[in-house]
Amino acid sequence: MSTTLKRVLVTGGAGYIGSHVVFALQETRRYKVISIDNHHNSHPRALERVAQIAKANLPADATEQDRESTEIDAHAADLTKEDEVRAVFGKYGKGGIWGVIHIAAYKAVGESTEIPLTYYQNNVSATISLLQIMSEYECTRFVYSSSATVYGTPPKIPIPETTRLQADSPYGRSKVMCEQILQDLCAGLSSSTLHALMLTAMPAEPQRWRAISLRYFNPAGAHPSGLIGEEPRGRPGNLFPLLAHMAVGRVPPDLKVFGNDYPTPDGTCVRDYIHVVDLARGHLLALDALAPTSRVWEGVGEQEAKIKAYNLGKGKGMSVLQIIEAMRKATGFDYKYEIVGRRRGDVPDLTADPALAEKELGFKAPQDLETMCRDLWNWQTKNPKGYDE
Amino acid sequence: MSTTLKRVLVTGGAGYIGSHVVFALQETRRYKVISIDNHHNSHPRALERVAQIAKANLPADATEQDRESTEIDAHAADLTKEDEVRAVFGKYGKGGIWGVIHIAAYKAVGESTEIPLTYYQNNVSATISLLQIMSEYECTRFVYSSSATVYGTPPKIPIPETTRLQADSPYGRSKVMCEQILQDLCAGLSSSTLHALMLTAMPAEPQRWRAISLRYFNPAGAHPSGLIGEEPRGRPGNLFPLLAHMAVGRVPPDLKVFGNDYPTPDGTCVRDYIHVVDLARGHLLALDALAPTSRVWEGVGEQEAKIKAYNLGKGKGMSVLQIIEAMRKATGFDYKYEIVGRRRGDVPDLTADPALAEKELGFKAPQDLETMCRDLWNWQTKNPKGYDE
Repeated sequence: MSTTLKRVLVTGGAGYIGSHVVFALQETRRYKVISIDNHHNSHPRALERVAQIAKANLPADATEQDRESTEIDAHAADLTKEDEVRAVFGKYGKGGIWGVIHIAAYKAVGESTEIPLTYYQNNVSATISLLQIMSEYECTRFVYSSSATVYGTPPKIPIPETTRLQADSPYGRSKVMCEQILQDLCAGLSSSTLHALMLTAMPAEPQRWRAISLRYFNPAGAHPSGLIGEEPRGRPGNLFPLLAHMAVGRVPPDLKVFGNDYPTPDGTCVRDYIHVVDLARGHLLALDALAPTSRVWEGVGEQEAKIKAYNLGKGKGMSVLQIIEAMRKATGFDYKYEIVGRRRGDVPDLTADPALAEKELGFKAPQDLETMCRDLWNWQTKNPKGYDE
Repeated sequence: MSTTLKRVLVTGGAGYIGSHVVFALQETRRYKVISIDNHHNSHPRALERVAQIAKANLPADATEQDRESTEIDAHAADLTKEDEVRAVFGKYGKGGIWGVIHIAAYKAVGESTEIPLTYYQNNVSATISLLQIMSEYECTRFVYSSSATVYGTPPKIPIPETTRLQADSPYGRSKVMCEQILQDLCAGLSSSTLHALMLTAMPAEPQRWRAISLRYFNPAGAHPSGLIGEEPRGRPGNLFPLLAHMAVGRVPPDLKVFGNDYPTPDGTCVRDYIHVVDLARGHLLALDALAPTSRVWEGVGEQEAKIKAYNLGKGKGMSVLQIIEAMRKATGFDYKYEIVGRRRGDVPDLTADPALAEKELGFKAPQDLETMCRDLWNWQTKNPKGYDE
C-alpha cells in the first residue's frame, strides 16, 4: 500500500463535474480518489471510464504508486445516510483521508422551489453531517462546490467575490447556507472563546479547518477523449446539453429563446461558460491550496477564518445566440428557434470577475467556446444515449 | 378518546419556554399536548408540574375532555434522530397531529461559535428533518421559535420585523436559516411551477404549509405558581437567572456589569424583557392564527407565501442597572457589582417594535419588570435547586 498518495474523497464523483474532477486528480498521480455517489443524477460507468483514461495515460515507466493512483475506491452511498458515509471514513480510520471535495448536490433551480425540503436535506443537512463525520475522523480540509447562484441578481457585472450573497431560490440559498456554515467552522479561535470552551461540558470540535468554496459559473463541454461528459436526467434544462440532444435527435428540435430584449449586445441573456476540464483543474488548485503553506493563506491571521471563496468562470460573457451559432458550427445541425417571452427569474448577464482565482490560485480557463462545443459534440456523438450502452 | 381536542406537538416542551407554552395550551382546554424533549437543558419533572397546575385549575364541572386536555403525552426523544420523531408521529397517524410548536434548540450564542456544527445539526438539520416527517404525516401547521438575534446589530431601534436578517453568531444564523427554509416551504404555488412539478419524477411535497416565526426578545420570570421556571445548565449565562442564583446562594455574588459607557440613559446595555407567561401566550395566539380563516392571512394572495414573523417583546427597554435594582427590591439581596469593559458582540439596545404582533395577533405583554422579578424569585425560593428535589 502506498504511503505518499493523498487520499481524497470526492462526493458526487460519478457526476458530470465530479467525473472530470476525479480525472484532474488522477492526472497528477499524487492522489488516491475515493468517491461517494448515490447515482441520483449520474452513472457508475462514468468512473470506470475515468479510470480507463487514467490508465491509458500512464507513462511506460509507471511505478506501483502511479498505478495505484488510477484505481478509484467508488462507493454507491448516500450522503443523507450517516452510517453509509461513516463506513467509508471508517475504512481508512482517523486521519486516513487527507481532504474532501464536496460536489454532490441537487442542482435544479426550478425543482428546488417545488421540493425545497428535499433540497435543504440533500444539500444542507447532508453537508453538516459530512462535516461532522470528517470531524470525527480528523479530516479538516474541504473544497466546496458552490455556485454563482449565491449572487442572485448581482448589482455589478463582472461579479467579484465580495458581492453580497443573496440567492433567489432554495437551491441558491442551500449553497449560501453551506458557505456560512463553513465560515463559522473555519473561524479562528480567540482566547476568550477558548476560555468559554473550557467551561462547557460539550465536546470540542477540531478547530483547524480550512475550506475553499468554488463558485461555479456555467460549465460546458466534456473531456476531449469523448469518454466522459454530461448526461442529464430527463430533458436537459441547460442550453448546451439541450442543443447537443437536439442535434443528436434525442429531443425534438423545438428550441425556444427566452427574450431578446435584454440590455445585452444581441438582446439575449449572457452567461459565463467555462470548459468543464478547466473547471475541474480549479478544484485541483483549490485542493492543493488547502495546505497551510499555500500562498492563499498569506496574511490570514491566526484568529481569522481559514476560508476563501473563488469564482470559477472565464470572465467572458456569451449570449444565447452566440452559443446556438457556435453549436451550429460544431454539429452542422440547423437549429431553428423561436423567440418567446422572458423567463421569470432570468437576469440579463452573469459574468464572473475571475481575477481573484487567477491571482491567488493561479487559475485560468483558457479553453474557448469553440472547444467547448467541439468536445461536447464529440462526447454526444460517441455516446448518443449517454452512459447507457 | 376525544374528538374535538386538537393535538399539538411541542418540541422542547420540558424547557423553560416550552413548559410555559404547554401550560398556556392546557389552560385553553382545547389542545392535547404531545411533547418531545431530549432533556439536554430541561428536566422531565417540569411537565409533571405543568400537568399538576392544569389539573388543579380544572373547574368543578370539568368534562372528560377537559380532563384529557391536562394529560401530556411526553416523549424523551431527540430531534436529530429521525426514527424517534417518526415514532411519535406514527402513534397518531396521518393527520393525527394538528400542528407543531418547534421550540427545541441549542441557544447559547458563545457556545455556538465553539461548536458550530453541533448547533447547525441540532437547530437546522433537526428542523429540516422534523418538517419532512410532518410532511409525511400531513401535518403542515408550524409555529417556530425564532429569536431577536436574527437582527444582529439592527440599524434602527425599536426593531420592526422588516429589518434585514443579519445574525452575528452561528446560533443566530441557525435561526435565520430555519426562517428562510420555512419561507421556501410556505411559498405559494404558481401555475408555472405546478407545470414543472408535473414534469419531474420527484415526489411532491404538500404545498399548504402555514408557518409563524416568533422572534423572542428576552424572556424572564416564571409561572406565578412557582412550580415551573428557568433552570439553566451550569452557571447562568443570562442576567435574570444569574441574579436569582446569586440571591439564593447558588453562585458567588461576583457580579460584573459589562460597560457603562453605552449611549443609553444610564450607560448600561438595554434589552427588552418580556414575562415568560406573556411570551407563552404569544405562542397560543400564533397557533390559533394558523387556521386559514385567521385575520393574519387577510390580503395574502394564493400565490404568496403563507408565513409571518412577529416580534415577541414588550417594546420597552430595560437597562442592566434597572434590572439589578428591581431584583434587589424583589429579593432583598444587596448586589455588589463591578463595572468592567464592554463585552465583544454586545450592542447598546435591543428593543422590539411589538406593533405588528399586537395588530395582527392581538398580542400584548402586560406584565412589568416588578412582576417578572417577583415571579422569578418566587420560583427560585421555592426551588432553590431547580427541579432537583
